[in-house]
Parts: sequence; structure tokens; C-alpha cells
Amino acid sequence: VKKINILNDPVSGFIRISEKIYSDIIDHPYFQRLRRIKQLGLTDLVFPSANHTRFQHTLGAFMLMQEALEILRHKGVNISDEEMKAASLAIMLHDIGHGPFSHALENSIVANVDHEEISLSFMNFFNDFTNGNLDLCLKMFTNKYERPFFHDLISGQLDIDRLDYLRRDSFFSGVREGNVGSQRIVQIMNVVDEKLVFERKGIYSIENFLIARRIMYWQVYLHKTVLAAEQILIKIFKRAKELVKAGQKIKCNHNLDFFLNYDISLNDFNNPKVLNKFAALDDYDIIVAIKDWTKHRDKVLSDLCRRLIERDLFKVEISKKVFDKKRIGELSNKLSKEFGLSENEKSYFVFSDFVQNSLYDYKSSKINVLKSDGQIVDISDVSSGFNTSLISDPDQEFFLCYPKELRN
Amino acid sequence: VKKINILNDPVSGFIRISEKIYSDIIDHPYFQRLRRIKQLGLTDLVFPSANHTRFQHTLGAFMLMQEALEILRHKGVNISDEEMKAASLAIMLHDIGHGPFSHALENSIVANVDHEEISLSFMNFFNDFTNGNLDLCLKMFTNKYERPFFHDLISGQLDIDRLDYLRRDSFFSGVREGNVGSQRIVQIMNVVDEKLVFERKGIYSIENFLIARRIMYWQVYLHKTVLAAEQILIKIFKRAKELVKAGQKIKCNHNLDFFLNYDISLNDFNNPKVLNKFAALDDYDIIVAIKDWTKHRDKVLSDLCRRLIERDLFKVEISKKVFDKKRIGELSNKLSKEFGLSENEKSYFVFSDFVQNSLYDYKSSKINVLKSDGQIVDISDVSSGFNTSLISDPDQEFFLCYPKELRN
Amino acid sequence: VKKINILNDPVSGFIRISEKIYSDIIDHPYFQRLRRIKQLGLTDLVFPSANHTRFQHTLGAFMLMQEALEILRHKGVNISDEEMKAASLAIMLHDIGHGPFSHALENSIVANVDHEEISLSFMNFFNDFTNGNLDLCLKMFTNKYERPFFHDLISGQLDIDRLDYLRRDSFFSGVREGNVGSQRIVQIMNVVDEKLVFERKGIYSIENFLIARRIMYWQVYLHKTVLAAEQILIKIFKRAKELVKAGQKIKCNHNLDFFLNYDISLNDFNNPKVLNKFAALDDYDIIVAIKDWTKHRDKVLSDLCRRLIERDLFKVEISKKVFDKKRIGELSNKLSKEFGLSENEKSYFVFSDFVQNSLYDYKSSKINVLKSDGQIVDISDVSSGFNTSLISDPDQEFFLCYPKELRN
Amino acid sequence: VKKINILNDPVSGFIRISEKIYSDIIDHPYFQRLRRIKQLGLTDLVFPSANHTRFQHTLGAFMLMQEALEILRHKGVNISDEEMKAASLAIMLHDIGHGPFSHALENSIVANVDHEEISLSFMNFFNDFTNGNLDLCLKMFTNKYERPFFHDLISGQLDIDRLDYLRRDSFFSGVREGNVGSQRIVQIMNVVDEKLVFERKGIYSIENFLIARRIMYWQVYLHKTVLAAEQILIKIFKRAKELVKAGQKIKCNHNLDFFLNYDISLNDFNNPKVLNKFAALDDYDIIVAIKDWTKHRDKVLSDLCRRLIERDLFKVEISKKVFDKKRIGELSNKLSKEFGLSENEKSYFVFSDFVQNSLYDYKSSKINVLKSDGQIVDISDVSSGFNTSLISDPDQEFFLCYPKELRN
Repeated sequence: VKKINILNDPVSGFIRISEKIYSDIIDHPYFQRLRRIKQLGLTDLVFPSANHTRFQHTLGAFMLMQEALEILRHKGVNISDEEMKAASLAIMLHDIGHGPFSHALENSIVANVDHEEISLSFMNFFNDFTNGNLDLCLKMFTNKYERPFFHDLISGQLDIDRLDYLRRDSFFSGVREGNVGSQRIVQIMNVVDEKLVFERKGIYSIENFLIARRIMYWQVYLHKTVLAAEQILIKIFKRAKELVKAGQKIKCNHNLDFFLNYDISLNDFNNPKVLNKFAALDDYDIIVAIKDWTKHRDKVLSDLCRRLIERDLFKVEISKKVFDKKRIGELSNKLSKEFGLSENEKSYFVFSDFVQNSLYDYKSSKINVLKSDGQIVDISDVSSGFNTSLISDPDQEFFLCYPKELRN
Repeated sequence: VKKINILNDPVSGFIRISEKIYSDIIDHPYFQRLRRIKQLGLTDLVFPSANHTRFQHTLGAFMLMQEALEILRHKGVNISDEEMKAASLAIMLHDIGHGPFSHALENSIVANVDHEEISLSFMNFFNDFTNGNLDLCLKMFTNKYERPFFHDLISGQLDIDRLDYLRRDSFFSGVREGNVGSQRIVQIMNVVDEKLVFERKGIYSIENFLIARRIMYWQVYLHKTVLAAEQILIKIFKRAKELVKAGQKIKCNHNLDFFLNYDISLNDFNNPKVLNKFAALDDYDIIVAIKDWTKHRDKVLSDLCRRLIERDLFKVEISKKVFDKKRIGELSNKLSKEFGLSENEKSYFVFSDFVQNSLYDYKSSKINVLKSDGQIVDISDVSSGFNTSLISDPDQEFFLCYPKELRN
Repeated sequence: VKKINILNDPVSGFIRISEKIYSDIIDHPYFQRLRRIKQLGLTDLVFPSANHTRFQHTLGAFMLMQEALEILRHKGVNISDEEMKAASLAIMLHDIGHGPFSHALENSIVANVDHEEISLSFMNFFNDFTNGNLDLCLKMFTNKYERPFFHDLISGQLDIDRLDYLRRDSFFSGVREGNVGSQRIVQIMNVVDEKLVFERKGIYSIENFLIARRIMYWQVYLHKTVLAAEQILIKIFKRAKELVKAGQKIKCNHNLDFFLNYDISLNDFNNPKVLNKFAALDDYDIIVAIKDWTKHRDKVLSDLCRRLIERDLFKVEISKKVFDKKRIGELSNKLSKEFGLSENEKSYFVFSDFVQNSLYDYKSSKINVLKSDGQIVDISDVSSGFNTSLISDPDQEFFLCYPKELRN
Repeated sequence: VKKINILNDPVSGFIRISEKIYSDIIDHPYFQRLRRIKQLGLTDLVFPSANHTRFQHTLGAFMLMQEALEILRHKGVNISDEEMKAASLAIMLHDIGHGPFSHALENSIVANVDHEEISLSFMNFFNDFTNGNLDLCLKMFTNKYERPFFHDLISGQLDIDRLDYLRRDSFFSGVREGNVGSQRIVQIMNVVDEKLVFERKGIYSIENFLIARRIMYWQVYLHKTVLAAEQILIKIFKRAKELVKAGQKIKCNHNLDFFLNYDISLNDFNNPKVLNKFAALDDYDIIVAIKDWTKHRDKVLSDLCRRLIERDLFKVEISKKVFDKKRIGELSNKLSKEFGLSENEKSYFVFSDFVQNSLYDYKSSKINVLKSDGQIVDISDVSSGFNTSLISDPDQEFFLCYPKELRN
């Protein structure tokens, strides 16, 4: 009798780990580390229940992929056991390249390297580890497999990744409006000419998906207090690197130390030692370093760290228009007068930038809808009354941060 | 110690009946009858779990009204116990004028009388029954009370009625995309200048409400098979009345008999006997009459009845454009050839009409948003990227029905 | 491409109707009739949301059976497509013999015939209807198939039937304590020596199942107000039959008329006409008859009917001990004095009986637990601290009913 | 207009922070630290979603307390605003004395001091911080207030604390069988003679609560793999302290360093510096220390740490009886032969102990049930058929841990 490991998950129900290769990878320390990386970084400072990890999301997506493929099989799409395994592994590993506090620190710990490229390095490692058993998985992940619908499922406009993280982030944050009918959307998937399509009868579910995603962006992912916290985190690492370059000593765990002292590029990840050092980092190292740095003699660094740990965040103003430079200048000056900061130091406390919900990028991939007459069209062609500009135009917002103590 | 009656409700949680006047009305046979009228009429033919009743919805709205008013009190809005009672009773009775299979039969059983006008007749009855205790309730219901926010809560663009029925219809139909964050929306309600407003921070919940409503319309309320069933129900009563006028005998329960034989107008409802006869009717009388009529010798009547009972419904085609008259004519002719029907009889089996989601009527009432600077604007002014035409333009769809046996 | 019909269900998620034989049976009027029979009869008088039907339960059990069998296949149990179909059909049809208000009227409409025996008559009918395609299904249902675990799943101590109705009744009544982890329990099923067993690690889920069932019994199924309503329903039919036998005319729908006038035995169900008449009956006929009878000149009949329709039920007292005959006598006498009733008539208004939760019958079948060392034991042997007497001893309660108007 | 802060919570719905004193305490770093202490310690190694924090539980209990008191007010119990505030603060602070990985490390970081006593130290601190505003809160917490039902709600057999953590732990672990009808149980609370009682009609909810608690104990809190992980954590700190005492250097964060080097007793917590050092510790310090120690040259320490971080846990055997000493000896010997460990070192890898679910302690406090005749009895007197020995007898289990590599 085959031994099947079952995990409880309040979102997915039961997650079955049915193949040895699955458990071999899950049990590896490189994968176990995802237990210590939160899916939504600092978001729990606003939504206290959003403490779910990349480990949970990854396994949830893994499970949903298998459900989707089973449904496609039921509809007569021919999917071999090898393909099932490869696609399941690809989604299981698609996010493994994320570092701690991923989006916020993506360019702070390792500059100019996309987490998907690091995921690829890990997959290559695991391919060796499993004696070449990830060849097909790698092909699918890099979109070189002859049946592109697998890649559409792994990484597309409406893929398994998004279907899991949206429902999960909505569930744990408690923002129920962001809930997505993932179970329903996989039911309307089909394959035509080896491409992923969605059956016409389900377009309301797709519209709901798009709206829910927008809600999650503006209400959760880009919530202005979350933004304020992430900006402080980014500034902390900017300052720390600046101090290190200026020759100051920064106490921290030796894995983190490596990334503060060296500028790592994508190529370096081919070096197993670098990969290993990266794989040793998680949210815990970052938070403990920041806790230590609250005692650092550099005022800028210690004050920023204290703010994050005590949740004494910046005030954030939001605007559809770029903020007036004069106003920013006045705030900066007031700050330097009151706290005696230099020109460079001021930029850590008063600053403006913008965010945009660029995910609605309609150029790169489409949501194909299969009409009952067999024709395939884009969602924007059948979604009557649905504002396609809503879908494709990036929403943009400018923000301005400064200490609460500053009178405006 | 005050005795409080508590009802279990899977949507609302616990519904507390805390005042004697509430139980007096609920216990009256006129109110108990709502237990035998389904909220969504024939919708269970497509969504088998949608068997919830007007009784449930009415009590759920009653509970939600009290929650909303408690929240407003917490925010410093002055609401007396008398006002609390009046508003609770108004929402409890707002739908009591619905007859069986309300929307479908609204113009079949009693022509040209709106169910809200019948509700008013019932309220007047209950006002007498409770020795004039519904005076304030009636004022609120008819929008004659000096504090209009109560009427906004009872009947507005975003009122307690909709907040309850949308979440409830979504829950019981199983269409989770239509779920509405009613609990959240009542949290962002406030009152300015005696009008109902919604706090700016909650606009995503309102957008979600509008989208969810649209989903419920097209996916549930106007689902084409539901439509097909309702059309058959309407045709059955049209035929029955036609036969009665032609002097034929139609066997049915004597309450229903009354409405088949007489044309009742709004004024007649002032007559207690008419009100009483209307209050005796429920879904059960209709279904049993139809079951009996499956044996009627009139082929048109018996065939339509059989189709409804056995769920052997018409085929429905949907189109954004009006259907070609020629095509309808051809279908009719084929039908009369195959089944030997007269010109008049044919119209019961092949017909076209349209539906529109006219609820997004933006002219009559608005959703007022309270910005953090105290300004009040319409939702369409702050909902960036939100397609206001989506909200206000009525979506329209034409449909064409004919027997499945007819080759197209 | 195979056409798959999908139904929405708030409890089961999506129910897939994947085989033609499934839809052929579901579409038959004999099956469609289950839409008009509530799963819990009059329970909605206490739990207003408990309006779900036998149609919903039957399809939910059908879906859960397929999930269970898929899980067993994953565990290496060899199950052919034919067996899958047969077991799915057996559970789909296991309850089709229920008449309106089943448990309450089980001995009123047709005396001394078990609903399971009527189910068998229907299955035989459907076997002919599908040209003998139900042979294996019938074998499984009657426990004549050589692999008994199929019968255990259809009808055992812990079968698919109970796993669906408990979760469903809990969901719709709103009594969440009665919820059962059906998804989890099917995960721990296994087959040893062709018998159904439950893996040791899941015994807490089984304990929870037994407790939840007990809660549902005492809190919902045997709720004293539900009991009072059911007793009135039973008395109504007793009186109606009595009047018929005495030669009085009782107005009702002609299908119901048949069962009031004739005493039907099990053998009669072999007659297609009798089966057909039975299949024509549903809750609607009963309720409309009772509404009509509220106007009957027999005071006993009309008063009982009015009580049920207006929810003006009897007072019920509950006791662990049998009620004192003297007290019952006094109540009866007071009643006959005040209302002038004869000896026989009194028994319709003052009476005592008992209920027992006899389902915990441990003699007939067992819950087999598979320990990790391969040994199979009964649940009572491994459930440490669990009170086995709680499971096996029938709980018994006596009740006494009389009109509220009677002073005690 | 009063500003009310609202937090989203997937379990409690919305949590309103309506008083300034509430936010003052929540915003304090001593309270914010609870965001970094998981409610269930290492349990996420088995239930990957169980990452919720003490911060969440504390606020959930705070919210539930207010709901309970509002319900009691509705029932006519006189509760002043001051009492409402005091009870809310008491439950908000009842767990603040927990250190990182509380139960597991309760005797490792600070020996022989109960977390409730530390909570009291924190409350005294906050009493000063709020200028004596916690006097009544302290009275209630220490059961010196003249109305004992407040203490029953804060800390009793069936208190708000348990009502929140059970539903929350069930929700996040995904073990739905452990769900508790907390909303329902607060509905049946009442106060008689200033003591907390539960109305008779709700005893099934109470039985369900007791069973759910038992399920959570054996299925989650005392799950054998969780146990194995906690034992490793305890052994790690035992070894670390041993090494420190032997004069070895152990690298760690200076707050943790303090507790490794000094034996702290309850009295020391009166020293603000000690309290401050304790308040600086959280799960993050512990995990990062353990990650560092995986590189320590002491084989015992580094191996135990590696096991925890990589989730390469011990094998655990469970038994109702004490394990045979001889067998333990043999395992130890085999271990020392294969790995060359000393007598003392062996005890870190092969050991036996027992756990018991001692919470069912019936002697200290009771669950009072209010019968409809006004009498008050214990739950065990009315819960017919309910096994009172199940409730009161502590379940006990012995376990034996050893490395998986050891052949048994």
C-alpha cells in the first residue's frame, strides 16, 4: 500500500503528498526554509492574521494544480502521469527563489535579480538532487515545452499561482471581498490547440477574479500603512549597506553579513555556496538584525529600526498626482531643523514615490475565452459592460511619507 | 428578566427577537405565511439549494438593521429606542406584500399592483392590530419621516434589504462570487445631515457590492434556465385566465380561484376580505394547482404544466440583439405543423422577449461617500478606474424560447 | 468532448454529473419529485433555514460516494468503473422511497412499509427503465455483492448517507456544533478483506462524528417543538383516515385521496399504478390539503390543521420518566369540560409518548478501526476514555402534549 | 465624533478598539511584542497554517469579552462602563506574560515562574503607565472583586480565553472538528448571585465544547510530532544552559544571553530592567539563536538545533503504559555505540516522559447550569448519558523519543 502524507490546510482542505519525489523535495532544508518566510511580509502590521507563509501557498498551489489537471483529464485532455508530476513540481518550486520579505527586500538583499531567476537556480539544484527528474518540469517552467498550456497554468494571466495566493491572502487577512472562486475557475478551464482556455459560461467568475485582485491590491498589498512599513524596511537596508560601505561595523548573523558586504549578481547563484548562503536566510534573521540595530549608534539606522519593531510608522499621504516638490522641501527642512539631520540623512525620513498595480498587464498574456460555438476570444471581447480599461490601465498612486511628529 | 427569543440562522448567526411587538407580528398568520414563499421562486430548478424563504430574508434584514443602528449609535448618531423599533419593524414588513413566486407572478395573480403597495396595506393592517404602534414605522417606510437616513436604510441604492438578500441568495445558491461583505458595509455607514453616507475607506467594499450584485443578476436571477422556467409559469397563468374567461372550468383551491376569476386592483386591498384571501395564497397552492392542471384537457395548459413539474423546460437562446422576426416565424410554423396548434396557441411555445438588469438605476438614488475631509461625493466620483457606465447603464439581453424537440 | 453537467451546492461544492445514466435517472419525474420533499419535514418551524430537500441530500451523497471511492483507488483498492457507477447509483437512489414528511408520515400514508423497501421498488423500476443497468447496483444495495465494503458505504454505522445528511442538516439548520468532518472521514477510509475500515489516526474524527450525531438528534431532530409539530401532523392524518372510514367526505387532491381511502401494503408497490400514485405525492399536496382542511366542519380536524399552518403548536413537556396517568387524565378532563370533546376526540389534544435516539444501535453493525500494526478492532476498543455506553445505550425521553390554553 | 479603530480578523470578524486606554496599551512595545510570539509554538511543523500569534488571540478574546458582556446587559445584568472596560483590559492582558514558545520553554528560559504571575507583573507596570486605571482590572484578574462572575469570564472552566483560543486554533490548524460554538456559548451565559451560569437549553453546546477541547488536545496540542519538536527545543535550552554553566561560550542575542546566564525568579520581575529584558524576547530570537547554534562545536547542541531547523525530528512512540526501562537502556546503548556519546549526552537523544490533558480538572472550578426552574446544578448532573469520567479523568500518555536512524 502506497503511503500518502496528508496535510491539513484551512484553505485547500487536505493536501496529499502522494509521490516520493514530492516528499524528497519538501523535506529538503531549502524547501523547509519557506516555513520561515511570510507570504505577505509586513502586512500583518495592518492585518494581524496575515501570518501565512510561502510554504503554505506553495503547497496550496501544488494541490490546486493537481485538481486542475484532474479536471482537464475528466474533460478528455490527455495528460500523462509524467506531465502531472512535472507540472506539480514546477508550481511547487515556482516561488522558492523568494528571499525574506520578498517584494520589499527584493532589491535590497540581492540587487537586480528577479526572484524567478533564483527559483530557476534552485530548480537546477533540485534537478541534480533528484538525478535529472526535473527536466520536464524545467521545460514547462521556462515555457520550452511543446504543450504551452502547462506554462499557462504555471505562469499566466490567470494561473494556479494567482488562484491560490489571492484566495489565501483574502482568507488570512480577513478581507473577504478579495475572495476568489478558485475552485470554480479550475472547473471552467479547458485546453484547445494546447492552449489554456476558459469556458464562456464562467466569465462572471473571471470578472470576479479580476475585481477581487484589484481589491486585494488597493486594500491589502498597497495599503498605505503596509507601504509605510515596507518603505522603512527598505530604508533600513539602504542605510545598513551605506554604513557598511563607509566602513562601519554592523552586527548581524553571518549569513546576512555576506549579503550586506557583497554585491551579488545572478551569475553568482551558480556557485553552490552562494545559493546555500541565500537559502540560509529567512524573515527571522532580518527581524533579529533589526532588533539588534535598534541599539546601533547611528541615529538614522536605530531610529528606523525602532519604528519598525514598535510599529511607530511614518505618516503616509496618498495622491493621484505627484507631490509638490516645494512641500516635500519644507517638510525636510522642518525635520532637519528639529532633529539636526544632514541632507543625506533627511532623505530617510521624508520621501515620496509611487506605486502602481502593474499586474493588469494585458500586453504580455491574455485570458482566452472559449465560446459555445468553439470560437476563442479575449475576455474583453465577451465581458459585456465590463470596463476593459479598468483591467488594462495601470492604477497609479503617489505617496508621501514623513514622521508623525512633524506638523504638516 | 426579559424573555428573548433566539433563532438560528446560518447566514446571520443568531437572530434575537427582543420585543413583544416583534413576536406579536411574527406570530401572526399573515407573517407566518412567508415561510411558504421562496425568496427566489423557481431558481432552485437550476440551483437546487436555493430553497430559502422570504421569512428567512425578512428576519435576516431585521437583524442587520439592528446591527447597523447599533453601529451608528456607537459613532455618536442619536437614535432613540422608538426609532430603533420603528426601523426594525419597517424592514421586517417591507416585503410582506409579496405573493407566491413574486417576481414571476407579480403581474399574473394581481395585475398592475406593485408588491410594495401591498406591503403598505399589510402594514396598515398591522398598525390597527398593534393599536397604532406602527405610525412611526409607516412614516419611515413612506419616506415622510424628518430623518431621511432611516428611509435610506429601508429602501435605497445600498440598503439593508439588498445587503441581506444578496449575501443570502449567494449563500444558498452556492454562487460564492456573489457574496457581499454586508457586515463590513454596515461598519462604514455613517449619518451626515440626517442622510446615510459611507466612509471613504470602505469604497472597495462598495465596488465589490456593485459587482457582486451584477454577478448575481446574470448568473442567478437572470440565468437562462431560470428565465425559461419563469416564462412557463407566466404562460401557465396567462392560459388559465384565458380559459376561465372563455368559460372553462379550472380546478383549483378556492383562494386561487378568486384571483383567477376577478381582476383585482390596488383599491381592493383596502377590503379586509381581499387582503385575507391574498394572505392565504402561497407557493404551495400554485404548485399543487399546476400539478392538477397537468391532467387538464386543454393541451396548452397541461403541456406547460407538465414541463414545469417535470423540469422539461424550453430551450433558450440569448442575444444582445433583438431576434429576427423571420426566424421566430419559421419556428412557430414548424411547431404548428408538427403539433397542430392554432395561431394563438403557438405563442405559448415560441416567443421572444428581453430582460434587463434595471436595478442599477442611478437617477433615483445615490451612494454618498464621506471623504476624510468631510466632503460628500458620489461613489462614481471617488471610485478611480471604476466604470461608472457599468453601474448606471442597464445591461439588456434578448431571449428566444421554444420547445427542445423543435429542430432549429 | 464528454459533456459534464455541474451543479452548485453550498455544502458539496460542485457536483458533477458525468455519466448519461446518471442524468437519465435524475431527469426522470420520479427523481425530480425529490425537489419537492424537504429533508427535515417540519423542522423549519423551529430552524427557519432548514428548507433543504431530499434532492440536495441525494446528490450530495452521490458526490461524496465518488470522492470516497477515488480516495480508496488512490490507496490501491481496486475498483472498476462499473463498480463506481453501481455504488454511485445505489446511494443516489437509496432514499427515493421516502414519501412527503417522511419520518412523521411514514406510517400514516402507507402503514407498515419501510421507506427502504419502497426505494427498492423504485430501483427495480429504474432497472427496467435503464435496460437492466442497475443489476450490480441492486446487488450492492441489498448486500448480496461479494465485496461487502460497497454495502458498508451505502448503509452502515458510518456510511456516506449519514456523512452527507449530518453535515447538510447542520449547515442548513445553522447548528454548527452538529457539523461533521465528512471530508476528513472519507480520507481515513480503507478496505481490508473487502470490508470498510477506518484508519486509527482518525479516531478523533469518528468520535466527533458520534457526538455531532447525538447533538443533531437532541437539538434538532428531536427538538421538542419539532416533535410537537410532527405529532400534530400525525394526528391530522389519523383523524382524516378515521373520518373517511366513518364515511365523511374529505376534500383533497386525487393522489392523496387514494392513500386516504386504501390501505396499501408492500406488495401493492409491485403494481406500477400504485408506484406512480405514490411518486405523484409530495410535501405540497400535504400542505395544501391541510390548508383546505382548516375549513373542514369536523372541529378536531380543522383545529389541528389550523394549529399547524399558523404554527400555534401544543405545549410539550419532556421527562426522563413516564408521565403520571392521573395527571394526563386531569388534563383530558379539563379539556373536555372547557371544549366539550368526546373521549375519542380528547386523545387528539392530550397525549403522551416517548422518543428514543435508537440510531446508536451497536448490535447490527460496527465501526472497524485499522490500527497501525494491521489489527482491526472496534471503535470502542481504541477510543480511550470514550464512553461506550454513551454510544450504544439508547437515550430515551418521554413527552406530554396539550394545548397551551389549558392551565396546567 | 469618536474615532474607532477597527481590525480585520478572519475568526472574530471586526475587532473594534473603541477606547483610548485600549489603544494606549496595544500600541506599547510590550504589547506589540505579542505579534512575534506564535500562539502554538512549534505546532506549525505539523499543521503548516498554525502561524497565528498571541496578539491575534488576545484581541479576539478582548472582542469576545465585550460581546459576552453586551449579551449579559441585554439580559438585564447590570454592568457599568467601568466594569466593561476593566474586564476587557483583564482579558487583553491575561496572556501578556507568555514568553517565546511559551509552554515548551516555560521552564527553560525562566524556571519555576508561571506565565500568569508574569502577566501580573506586566499588569502592574501598565497600571502605573495608565496612572492607576487598571485597579479594577487587577481586582478582577486576581479574583478579589466582589462580583466573581467577572473572574469566571476571565479565568474559569469555560471562560472567554478558552472560547477564543479553541475556535482560533481549530480555524488556523484546519482541524475543523475542534471548532467550538463560541458565539453560541456566550449567548447562553447568564449571571445568578453574581456567578456565571449557563442556561440549560445550551448544554449540547457545552458538551460539544468539552469534546472539541479534547480533540484539540490529542489531535493538535499533544500531537506526537509536535511533542517531538517541543522536546528537542527543551533539550536544546537544557544543553545550552549546561554548556554556559560549564563555562563555554554560546553566541546569542544579548537579551537571550541574560536568561541563559542568570537564574531568574518571580521576585526579579519587580525589577523593571528584568521585565524589560523579558519583554524584549520573542520567537525570532530563539529561532535565530538555534540557527546559529547549528554551527556550534558541541555536537549535542548543534545536532539538536539542526534537527529542529531542518524538521528532522525524533521518532516518537506512544503508549498508555510506562515504557520498559530495559528497552530504553538498549536504545541508549546502541546510540552511544554508533555515535560515541557519553552517559549524559545520551539522555538528549533517547528519553521517555508522559503528557496528560490535565485541563479537565473538575475539582477547582465547575460549569454551572441554570435549569428552567431556576435551580443551579453542575453540567455533570444534567448531561444525560454524558460520561463525566471522560470530563474529569485526566487522559495520560507516555512517549518515547529516539533518533530515526536508530533501528528499533
